[in-house]
Amino acid sequence: MSSQPSRLVALLSGPDQRGLVAKVSNWIFEREGNIIHADQHRDQEEGVFFQRIEWAIESTKDPKQEAEAFHSFGDSIGMRTQVAIAGAKPKVAVLVSKADHCFHDLMLRWKAGDYPCDMALVISNHDDLRPVSEKYGVPFENIPVTTDTKSDAEAQQLSILKKNDIELVIMARYMQILSSIFLDTFGKPVINIHHSFLPAFAGAKPYHQAHKKGVKLIGATAHYATADLDQGPIIHQAVAQITHRNNVGDLIRKGRDLEKLTLAQAVSWHLENRILVYENKTVVFD
Amino acid sequence: MSSQPSRLVALLSGPDQRGLVAKVSNWIFEREGNIIHADQHRDQEEGVFFQRIEWAIESTKDPKQEAEAFHSFGDSIGMRTQVAIAGAKPKVAVLVSKADHCFHDLMLRWKAGDYPCDMALVISNHDDLRPVSEKYGVPFENIPVTTDTKSDAEAQQLSILKKNDIELVIMARYMQILSSIFLDTFGKPVINIHHSFLPAFAGAKPYHQAHKKGVKLIGATAHYATADLDQGPIIHQAVAQITHRNNVGDLIRKGRDLEKLTLAQAVSWHLENRILVYENKTVVFD
Amino acid sequence: MSSQPSRLVALLSGPDQRGLVAKVSNWIFEREGNIIHADQHRDQEEGVFFQRIEWAIESTKDPKQEAEAFHSFGDSIGMRTQVAIAGAKPKVAVLVSKADHCFHDLMLRWKAGDYPCDMALVISNHDDLRPVSEKYGVPFENIPVTTDTKSDAEAQQLSILKKNDIELVIMARYMQILSSIFLDTFGKPVINIHHSFLPAFAGAKPYHQAHKKGVKLIGATAHYATADLDQGPIIHQAVAQITHRNNVGDLIRKGRDLEKLTLAQAVSWHLENRILVYENKTVVFD
Amino acid sequence: MSSQPSRLVALLSGPDQRGLVAKVSNWIFEREGNIIHADQHRDQEEGVFFQRIEWAIESTKDPKQEAEAFHSFGDSIGMRTQVAIAGAKPKVAVLVSKADHCFHDLMLRWKAGDYPCDMALVISNHDDLRPVSEKYGVPFENIPVTTDTKSDAEAQQLSILKKNDIELVIMARYMQILSSIFLDTFGKPVINIHHSFLPAFAGAKPYHQAHKKGVKLIGATAHYATADLDQGPIIHQAVAQITHRNNVGDLIRKGRDLEKLTLAQAVSWHLENRILVYENKTVVFD
Repeated sequence: MSSQPSRLVALLSGPDQRGLVAKVSNWIFEREGNIIHADQHRDQEEGVFFQRIEWAIESTKDPKQEAEAFHSFGDSIGMRTQVAIAGAKPKVAVLVSKADHCFHDLMLRWKAGDYPCDMALVISNHDDLRPVSEKYGVPFENIPVTTDTKSDAEAQQLSILKKNDIELVIMARYMQILSSIFLDTFGKPVINIHHSFLPAFAGAKPYHQAHKKGVKLIGATAHYATADLDQGPIIHQAVAQITHRNNVGDLIRKGRDLEKLTLAQAVSWHLENRILVYENKTVVFD
Repeated sequence: MSSQPSRLVALLSGPDQRGLVAKVSNWIFEREGNIIHADQHRDQEEGVFFQRIEWAIESTKDPKQEAEAFHSFGDSIGMRTQVAIAGAKPKVAVLVSKADHCFHDLMLRWKAGDYPCDMALVISNHDDLRPVSEKYGVPFENIPVTTDTKSDAEAQQLSILKKNDIELVIMARYMQILSSIFLDTFGKPVINIHHSFLPAFAGAKPYHQAHKKGVKLIGATAHYATADLDQGPIIHQAVAQITHRNNVGDLIRKGRDLEKLTLAQAVSWHLENRILVYENKTVVFD
Repeated sequence: MSSQPSRLVALLSGPDQRGLVAKVSNWIFEREGNIIHADQHRDQEEGVFFQRIEWAIESTKDPKQEAEAFHSFGDSIGMRTQVAIAGAKPKVAVLVSKADHCFHDLMLRWKAGDYPCDMALVISNHDDLRPVSEKYGVPFENIPVTTDTKSDAEAQQLSILKKNDIELVIMARYMQILSSIFLDTFGKPVINIHHSFLPAFAGAKPYHQAHKKGVKLIGATAHYATADLDQGPIIHQAVAQITHRNNVGDLIRKGRDLEKLTLAQAVSWHLENRILVYENKTVVFD
Repeated sequence: MSSQPSRLVALLSGPDQRGLVAKVSNWIFEREGNIIHADQHRDQEEGVFFQRIEWAIESTKDPKQEAEAFHSFGDSIGMRTQVAIAGAKPKVAVLVSKADHCFHDLMLRWKAGDYPCDMALVISNHDDLRPVSEKYGVPFENIPVTTDTKSDAEAQQLSILKKNDIELVIMARYMQILSSIFLDTFGKPVINIHHSFLPAFAGAKPYHQAHKKGVKLIGATAHYATADLDQGPIIHQAVAQITHRNNVGDLIRKGRDLEKLTLAQAVSWHLENRILVYENKTVVFD
């Protein structure tokens, strides 16, 4: 049993209308809930309302039933809703290749108790990280990928993700592009870390591109993966200063810290149900 | 007439109780208001609730009456409230000495339309900034201050602040300490900019202190002035990196940009009614 | 007479060779100079050596003669050199349109003594900033530009730049593109401020582009203007965090501070002879 | 054999005198060395000269002999010198308690090849980190410390440090104060990470102090340990923004990333011989 068994977190979005805040808070009040946090946003240009609301439910009530009830309530006022039970731990899979800095960073944060999730699976196109993965106590699957075997490999990945009830995939410098078929079939969020401040330097070898261009900042971008490579909704971005003294190797080294921190923050927000996606952008209730 | 005549902004604080969000949003909904922004905070340790809520009122209603009605409503639910009419421009006085960087910065932002206020008065213990003040179209009062004349000078300042209905005083590197008698008698907010990351290097010559200590960051702190020098509630802080190459003169030069930006941000938040003071700390709804 | 009449600053670049640091420092030592600062950089990939060296000359010596002697010495060891007399104040022209934030910022820094230059001229395609320019004591030239008159306008600009012995042009949000003919004919450095973190969002309306894309950082880039729009050597870049709450207007407002600080830093480095351009990149000895 | 067997790095400091740069570069040139990097600093107020110089030696020469020769040369010109052979890997001991974030961070950077050192030893007052330490392949010594046994424990620590030829001790959130006797007897550098932006919040529980004070930034400071607690020469400092929403637990969580990055940077600079200590301050040639 979780330490906070009776909290719900809802994300709502839909056409703006007068009285939405009152309607939602009344619904919760009438069912004897107690609002802990509530955060709203209006996109004035588009007339869209967004809300994240977290509340404690009466101890005699069943979280699942309350979540379903809220969902129905959301439908009744024309809002799209996602409702999560705080303390429920979604199962997460991490896709890695050989670079291990984001991998270790995620695992250590999870071990430190920072991530309310179940790190259920590591999938890699190489076998290198098997031993460390197993030391963290996370099952490791090696699924090699070549140009010829890519669709087979993705089928295998999908099958194993499904079998494990994975709710979130994190691409921790996976270095492979997931096909739109994969993304559609999986149908659940995939977070990727790209090693540049997108939209600058999309595609391969962004640090080499940055060095050639002579920029004075390098960056990292965490985003949801979509069929358009490096074009998905941006969750978080960070940069670090560089100088003419830094060669490509320095950028790669400095970039690792950016990648770790940026991905870690995005994963944290996702797991805390703080992100709404809208028109290829994100609303992040931090 | 203001361009947004019919918006109110309320700041509430008081003992937490179940249903507060619902009560406030219902009150507004029932009076046909439309909530534009709402932001809440709970201090879980102290059991205190804080809210900033901004709403559009019915066009047939009188903003002042609505503000008063909300105030009474706040009383009825045991909340301290401040209600401002968005677009009402409080009168502001700026205290300066000879250093002019924060002074110009504030004036230019005001001229650019960034500050919803009326820059009504500049008061200085020197006469140096009279010509530039008058170029900005702001009346300038020179009130010299010596150790002997300090209480007289403060009496003069208070009288002129009162005569001009000043609602906010900004100490833009004024370099003089305001007595607790002055602060009590004025009874309205005074924002000061201190040139260090408080609580480090309170008091005189913070850049010299920082250089002597060999810190690698310098900072600036905007805070409300209280009787305890440099100990008032902190509104905003920023820092910049320095190196062993920087002498005191460099710190002073670099610090100017920090001071300008930090003070400008604090003034902006204050004028937009985003700050609540509580137990010598601030809640900033940004 | 300048307060530091007897300091020279040299920038050298050329093919790397063993003993360069020794040769340069010996030359200065033998002529009784005293090195104050020296900073070197080697581009290991390209085998190019860069140096900035600042030294005090003997008080009996003539700075111009010493500068010429160093220049000849540079030739003799196969290095490209620029030598400036510290304290000599180059004449600078500022190109502006209607936006005045960078303009005021540059003028106030100059007035505060931060810039070792002579602000000799303001040129604008509009007449709006004439009064403020004249208050700063800087002559103002209004040269309107339309699609039809652009080449005539540039000819006029060039003539007036030449007549005033302008050594540096600063585009302080000028909003017009300078033709490659203009740049070639002028033949001296032109610094531009672009309101994005290039290479992202080059071209028009970068804040609108950034808002549409949903990035979480906005940026500003100071660079030398070249015939390729927004592609010149980058001098300095800075970014600020934004959130989903910020609309385009907010980005524009927040961006102003970035633009001011980024341009101010680039101009400062340029005036202190800290920048070497190499293969469309910059070496900045800060 | 190291991959860069024939590079030396020297740090020099001493009274400033005309011609120092020339003398040093000549000495290297005459012995057929090739300067790779050279960086100087003059403390103008104190008249002290600092230099870091890195050069490749002739492949036929012995690095140790060249280092000694340079040392003698330094003596002859009145300079204090430290000379290191690039690629020589000093033996490092890490002191830990139970908190493991800095520990893992250091170990992973070392494993990734970022640190030119030999992680030779972990010493802890608890036994908790023994298994992970051993997984990294680093011997672990548990030396419990109580008020009564402290001097015995320190004697044990000193003995084991000596036996292992430890050249650097890193306190990775060790949570114990090292006595001045320990520091004097060890006689080699000890780097500590303090979880605040010193000099603010020295001593115990800095995050609690910061929360109580209501600051808007938290910080971390890496410094050399001296007999005065939290008063040693500062190497590096970093800060992160916090808001009223963050409770002490949030500060602790956010602070971990600051502590990791700040300590990691300080260790990196130290191992690359980039730091000179002078009058309780540091000169960092980055």
